[in-house]
Amino acid sequence: MLKKYERLCERVTIKGILKARSAISHYINKTNLIYYSELSRLIGCDAFVKHENHLPTGSFKIRGAMNFFHNIRKEEVEHGVLVSTRGNHGLAMAWAARWYNIPCTVVVPENNNPETNRTIESFGAELIEHGHDFYDAQFYCDELVAAAGYYYVEQGNEPDMLNGIGTMGLEIFEDMPDVDAIICPIGGGAGCASLLRVAQAVNPAVEIIGVQAANAPAFYESLHKGDWTVLDRADTIADGLAARSVFQLPYVIMKDHVRDVVLLDEDEILEGIRQALITTHNLAEGAGAASIMAALKIRERLAGKKVVLIMSGGNLDRKQLELALA
Amino acid sequence: MLKKYERLCERVTIKGILKARSAISHYINKTNLIYYSELSRLIGCDAFVKHENHLPTGSFKIRGAMNFFHNIRKEEVEHGVLVSTRGNHGLAMAWAARWYNIPCTVVVPENNNPETNRTIESFGAELIEHGHDFYDAQFYCDELVAAAGYYYVEQGNEPDMLNGIGTMGLEIFEDMPDVDAIICPIGGGAGCASLLRVAQAVNPAVEIIGVQAANAPAFYESLHKGDWTVLDRADTIADGLAARSVFQLPYVIMKDHVRDVVLLDEDEILEGIRQALITTHNLAEGAGAASIMAALKIRERLAGKKVVLIMSGGNLDRKQLELALA
Repeated sequence: MLKKYERLCERVTIKGILKARSAISHYINKTNLIYYSELSRLIGCDAFVKHENHLPTGSFKIRGAMNFFHNIRKEEVEHGVLVSTRGNHGLAMAWAARWYNIPCTVVVPENNNPETNRTIESFGAELIEHGHDFYDAQFYCDELVAAAGYYYVEQGNEPDMLNGIGTMGLEIFEDMPDVDAIICPIGGGAGCASLLRVAQAVNPAVEIIGVQAANAPAFYESLHKGDWTVLDRADTIADGLAARSVFQLPYVIMKDHVRDVVLLDEDEILEGIRQALITTHNLAEGAGAASIMAALKIRERLAGKKVVLIMSGGNLDRKQLELALA
Repeated sequence: MLKKYERLCERVTIKGILKARSAISHYINKTNLIYYSELSRLIGCDAFVKHENHLPTGSFKIRGAMNFFHNIRKEEVEHGVLVSTRGNHGLAMAWAARWYNIPCTVVVPENNNPETNRTIESFGAELIEHGHDFYDAQFYCDELVAAAGYYYVEQGNEPDMLNGIGTMGLEIFEDMPDVDAIICPIGGGAGCASLLRVAQAVNPAVEIIGVQAANAPAFYESLHKGDWTVLDRADTIADGLAARSVFQLPYVIMKDHVRDVVLLDEDEILEGIRQALITTHNLAEGAGAASIMAALKIRERLAGKKVVLIMSGGNLDRKQLELALA
């Protein structure tokens, strides 16, 4: 079953990532890698935050979305693209689709954040609300594809999405070639897998440490079972970590190389959001703050090292912010 | 008394700003100018935020600090530089001084935010706590200069500081040459004055609209009196607006050209912070959120226009954040 992805995985390469950069750099500025002294003091290392939350649409996903549209053949998307999402993927695809003038339909679950829905629509995408959760929405997409001939974009399984996201890793190694460890949240796995690809090309000795929610430890479980794992549920306040499985393509890339995953319980995720606000003055969403919290949790292992913490996104709604500050 | 500054003001030019960019762009990434649809809907215009809060040290001042050190002759600073500050200016100067390997001493008032103090020290600067408020600290600097021969950096009166800050304006006009109006907070005035210089060179028809705290309306009063004004007090929760006067150099640049200043009371400043969080997912400090709030306040005048809102900084402490969310 994973065979197909073992072939696809050969299309996620440092060459593809370099090409992605030349494609997207006209639209997307390099994000800052900022040293925070207070955070460094608390962790006991040199702590740098990679600010993917500063990108348009508020997350790293815009890198992948732009590169996807740059590379897709026009015939494949003549009926438009279809996306299922609870937030960041949909925001990114809607934003990017507009630049490339390709119709974009976004399916969200019925209880989705109305502000996110409004923003997706404001980028010109068609929004469909369907089902109780993300998986209902995703399932509904199959019907839509059969009926209307959309190109369904399964975000984590598109090599050009991963190549685009890999530009984040390129920027890290350019700004700090002597980084010792990079801590990266794992939801669908595209961010961490593409980062790993860059590290393998530039400096395989760099430690890549993943972070998942204890309530949604799909990749963590996969490592222990030695096989791709789908959980029954993934209930975490961190939307970006709330995946019942990683996508198969990032799984195939990561499985023999990322052996180290920190799990955070829900209180720790909220504490991460609080620490991000206090030490970096940035609003991070749960997944975006997870690297900071993971670093605090494993501080002994990071002592004295140069550590990059990926702040993957900043789309936290007000209710969650108030919860984090309570 | 303003004669000296009328001469200095000839050194703040589009040429100086272009040179500044080539000097600082190796150290500082371009900041994003991001369109926010929800904010646009609320204001009734096309609202773009210029994210100066994303810069290292969390404010636009780093642009000026880097250009200052790039241009200053080594002999002038052989005894080091001296700065008085409550926050952003000191953070920026300490950060920049380290790149240029020049000793930096920072005087803060005794009740200053301890976290800010710690961060300034972490950049390698010497910190001196003195006096009850910023003006005591500033006064004390005169004694230190006499005693130790420091170069005292009066931030808003250094042409190279303004040329550096002007790079913000260059980036705005590159990303959106057809902007109709730019709203910019006015504390010491350096940000707004340098922006004006760029607008004068590129498109003098662009409206430059200032924002001040109703509790610290120094430039607003100057406009009405027709003369440079020093207030008795400037008590606002927005540190970046808490200036008893604008500096003379920006005053001379702005006085005949910036005729439009929106005043915000303290509740409106807090509401701005709240709106920035909700609509942009960014933590803005009071001055950083002031443009958003001013735009909401004068929305009729902005209807249908392309408007840039300067988010000048993000260094809001937790106490103020809780106040804003209360």
